[in-house]
Order: sequence, then C-alpha cells, then structure tokens
Amino acid sequence: MSGKFLGIDIGGTKVMLALVSAEGVTLKRNRMETRAEDGPRRVVERIAGLARETTRGEEITAVGLGVPGPIDFSRGMVTLAPNLGWKNIPIVDLFAEHLDWPLFLENDALVAAWGEKTLGAGQNFDHFIYMTISTGIGGGLILDGKLYRGAYGTGGELGHMIVDPSGPACGCGNQGCLEVMAAGRALARMGREALEQGQWPEGPSPEGITGSTITSWARAGDQPSLKILNRQARYLGLGLANLVHILDPQAFVLGGGVMEAADLLLPRIQAAMDDYLMPGYGRRLQLLPARLGDIGGALGAAMVARDFIPKK
Amino acid sequence: MSGKFLGIDIGGTKVMLALVSAEGVTLKRNRMETRAEDGPRRVVERIAGLARETTRGEEITAVGLGVPGPIDFSRGMVTLAPNLGWKNIPIVDLFAEHLDWPLFLENDALVAAWGEKTLGAGQNFDHFIYMTISTGIGGGLILDGKLYRGAYGTGGELGHMIVDPSGPACGCGNQGCLEVMAAGRALARMGREALEQGQWPEGPSPEGITGSTITSWARAGDQPSLKILNRQARYLGLGLANLVHILDPQAFVLGGGVMEAADLLLPRIQAAMDDYLMPGYGRRLQLLPARLGDIGGALGAAMVARDFIPKK
Repeated sequence: MSGKFLGIDIGGTKVMLALVSAEGVTLKRNRMETRAEDGPRRVVERIAGLARETTRGEEITAVGLGVPGPIDFSRGMVTLAPNLGWKNIPIVDLFAEHLDWPLFLENDALVAAWGEKTLGAGQNFDHFIYMTISTGIGGGLILDGKLYRGAYGTGGELGHMIVDPSGPACGCGNQGCLEVMAAGRALARMGREALEQGQWPEGPSPEGITGSTITSWARAGDQPSLKILNRQARYLGLGLANLVHILDPQAFVLGGGVMEAADLLLPRIQAAMDDYLMPGYGRRLQLLPARLGDIGGALGAAMVARDFIPKK
Repeated sequence: MSGKFLGIDIGGTKVMLALVSAEGVTLKRNRMETRAEDGPRRVVERIAGLARETTRGEEITAVGLGVPGPIDFSRGMVTLAPNLGWKNIPIVDLFAEHLDWPLFLENDALVAAWGEKTLGAGQNFDHFIYMTISTGIGGGLILDGKLYRGAYGTGGELGHMIVDPSGPACGCGNQGCLEVMAAGRALARMGREALEQGQWPEGPSPEGITGSTITSWARAGDQPSLKILNRQARYLGLGLANLVHILDPQAFVLGGGVMEAADLLLPRIQAAMDDYLMPGYGRRLQLLPARLGDIGGALGAAMVARDFIPKK
C-alpha cells in the first residue's frame, strides 16, 4: 500500500483536515470554522480551498469525507445534517466542482470509529463500539474488523436509543433517548433543575450553568454536581449494558467533548454498566477513552479513503 | 455440497430434531419432552437415543445443536440455561459419550435465525434481526449474511434491552427489560392488573388469565384485552425502533408463541415502531412473521452444521 490520503471531517462548528500516509503517519493537519450559515456551496468551496493548501505539492490518492448525518450513498448525498442545516445536499457533486480526487463519503461517527480502529484505542479489537458524547451522542460500530454501516448506511445511531420513555423530549421527536438523558446538554439541564430545587443556595445564574461548569464543580468536590454526573453515568451505563446484551463487543471506545472528564466519568459509567449487565456478561469487556482527540474524525476519514476506496 | 445434517433444538419443555439434506430438504422430524428435571446426563442420553432413531440407516455429516443460553465455545459448555436449570454443563462432552458425529454448538435463537435465513422468511436479506417472543424474548442477528455471535458468543440478547428503567423487575435482576414489558408473561401480568382495576366486572379468576386468554379475548373484540395488546405492541415497537437506529437492518423476522397472534400484533408493532423511528429511518424495512414454526430451531441447527462446521 502506498500513496497519501486526505481526510476531511465536517462538523457543525469546525472542519478538520488531515493528510495521512498509507502507513498511517499524519503528515499535516488543518482546521477552519464551518460557518454553515454560508450555505453548502460556499462551505464546500472554502473546504476545497483549504484542502488544496493542505496538500500542496503532494500527490493524493483519495479523499475521505466525514459528514454529520445519514447518507444516501447511491446519490452521494447528505440526507440530513441538522447541525449544518443541510437536507439532501449532493456533497460529492459539490466537491467534484473543485477537486478531482476520488472521494469517499461516510458518516462522521463511523470515520471517527475507523480512526480509533486504525490509529487509536481500537487497534486491538475486531468488535468494538465507538461512542462520541458531546452536545449529542453518536456512534460507530466496528464488527468483524470492519465498519458496520447497516443495510442503508444509517446504523450506529446510539444516541437515539430510547432508555426512558417517560424522559424529557429529544430533538428527534421521541422522549428519553440516551442523548437527551446523558449528553452534554443533559448535564446543563440537570444543573438548572438542581438550581431550581435550591441545591446551590448561593449559586450561579441559570445561564451560568453548562455541561463544563457542572463537570468542573464536580471535580472540585461539589456534591450536587457529583450527583448530576452520577445520573449521567447511570444512563450511559444502562445504554452500554443494552449494547453489550445486543452486540457483545470486546470494548467501548468513548470520545467527544464530555469525555474530557473521563477521569470522573469512566469509573462511574463502568460501575453503572456492571450493575446493569446480566451475570456472566462483560467480564472481558474494556471501557476505554478515545485516543485521537478532535482530529480523530479527519484521521479516520483519511484511513477510510485508504481502506475502502475500490482499487482500480 | 452433499451429505445429511441433523439439527437438535433443546428447549425448556421439548426437544425438536430435524434431519435435513445439504440442499435444505427436510427428510425427517422428531420431538420429545425435555424433562429437564432428570438432569443433563439423562436428558442428553435420551436425546442421543432419539437422534440415533431419527437417523437410522442414514450417513450423517454433522450435527448442529441449539441450546437455550450462552455458550463457552472453547470448552463446549452451556454456561447458563435457566429454563433447563443448567449451569456450566459440558454438553459437547456429554453428547460425545453417545454420538461420534461432529457436533456444532450454538445458541437456540441464533440457530432459529439461521433457519429463517436459509429456509424461511429471511432468505432475501443480508442484514436481519430474528426475534422470538414467547414466555421470554430472545434474538439472533444476521449481519452481512452471517450469524453474528458477538465477541464472546453472547450477542443477540434482545429481551434484556432495558426499555423502561422504572418498569417491573425482570428475572435477570434489572427492571423494565423488553422481555418483562412485552413477552408472554407481560400479557398475563397486565391482564391481572386490568382485572384488579375492575376492567372485567363479571370477569374471570386471576388464575384464568394467561397470555393466550388475553389474545383470544382481544381477537373477539374485548376492549381491555385490545388495550393490553396495544401496550405490548408499543414496547415491542420501541425495542425494534432502538434496534433500527443501532443496526439499520433490512428486516425483522418475528417468531415464537406470541406471534401466533401475528394478525393482531404485527400491524400494531409496525405502527408503534414507525412512531418511534426518526424521520428517514426504516422506510424500506420489512416486518415479517417467521415461517418455520417450532421446528425452525432444529432446521436451523442442521443448517448451522452444514454451513459452519470447519471442512476437513
């Protein structure tokens, strides 16, 4: 295997690029703001410009592109990307106006999962589940050593597993999805509820409460904040236990902004998951933090281009 | 491919046997009571006797054996089979005392799934989820055209997906598993609750209420019974929607005793699932009744022996 691969990871606020050799060595990184409000045509034009800059003087074998939403592979379209305000955007055609490298489109959580598989925490596993926990919760399944996309490319939507049908409303239209119970926004919501209940008598204003304030207070030993973290970990543990019973993976690799508090969260998630697992399940299961950070999606996109573009 | 294959499906109350040709033609069937109270050694001895009788005069290439519980493949053991009262039973060794055909051990829901894949409702699908709904709920995943066992052979425990953490206690130790919310016993429990609430003022005794009485009353148009079926279907629809979001299959194939009321249940499950699915999901998804009935596990076990025994 030889050649160089460009990975592009389009997120709601930023776009990450990584130029990676066939051996998996990162040669260059770049980032830009997405500014989705400019519309897909302008966004793609700017990404293409930065891609050319990032790859100047290099021969590129292929490009991998991670996008935050389900994909219609047959038409090279992003079906729906709420974070970008995109619906049925012919992203492959838009890029083809600017770049003539072979382009491989994939869901952003799946490319991040493939990054962890090829270069990160998932290298030793044939069956693992990558979960990203930030504002929302996304997932990517690696089964039998391969990306598992599902029949129509929409598998791995772990954040919309319903874990409590009487829970709060989720943006997706259901109630009590894992995402609404346990992602970054859930921390802020539980924080505001705790404030209303008078848990911090000399406390902050409701606007001052975010996921990261709760986390930092918990780190300082604040009891109401620790309770909130425990509730979050409880739902995450329940979700992971469900996935163990369904898919019996070797490991979970957990990434995303919320995992910056991995030291606080992982032991709590582990304890909750163990509590929910049936006897005999999960004994050899590993719970690991992702290793590649916020460049993981772009690295994974490059490795997807390396590993899944049909050879000529 | 040639040869003949014997499938044995050990259940809590009965054992089914099927002799199947390499082409998938059923040559002979047999059944016996399990009488698990005799203990595994006696049960295996009787099964072996019936296996010899069923295969008299035939040359057998291999035997597939479906058992109701997780398996330790490396030791040929049934780790835990609550319906049989078995724990760490060296089933392969026990059979080897009586039969000298190559024997392939597999979970009962997985062999039933493979039966539907090779001979039943799943033949046209590479990605489908088999779910059996009777006293309990079990499952078998067919992904990428193959049995998906998970890393340690314990995947597909769909009945113990927690769908309502404030629900009733399940035998597994958790609360609100799909099984306790929606399997056969749940019907009976909801029926007794309805009786206590006075829904049948001139009604039956609590002992007279079982899953099948509720179903037959519902079929006759009894409103409280229809409500109970709706609640059961609601939870099943929620569980299936979770699985669509996670695994994006082409189809569900639903079997088990509860599906004898498929005409009443399937449209209700479909409606509930559609309601829980996110926009754009499940459009091409098919919801199908299993086709092989209670011999499906034995047929599938024979086909597992045909398809997965390592060739010499």
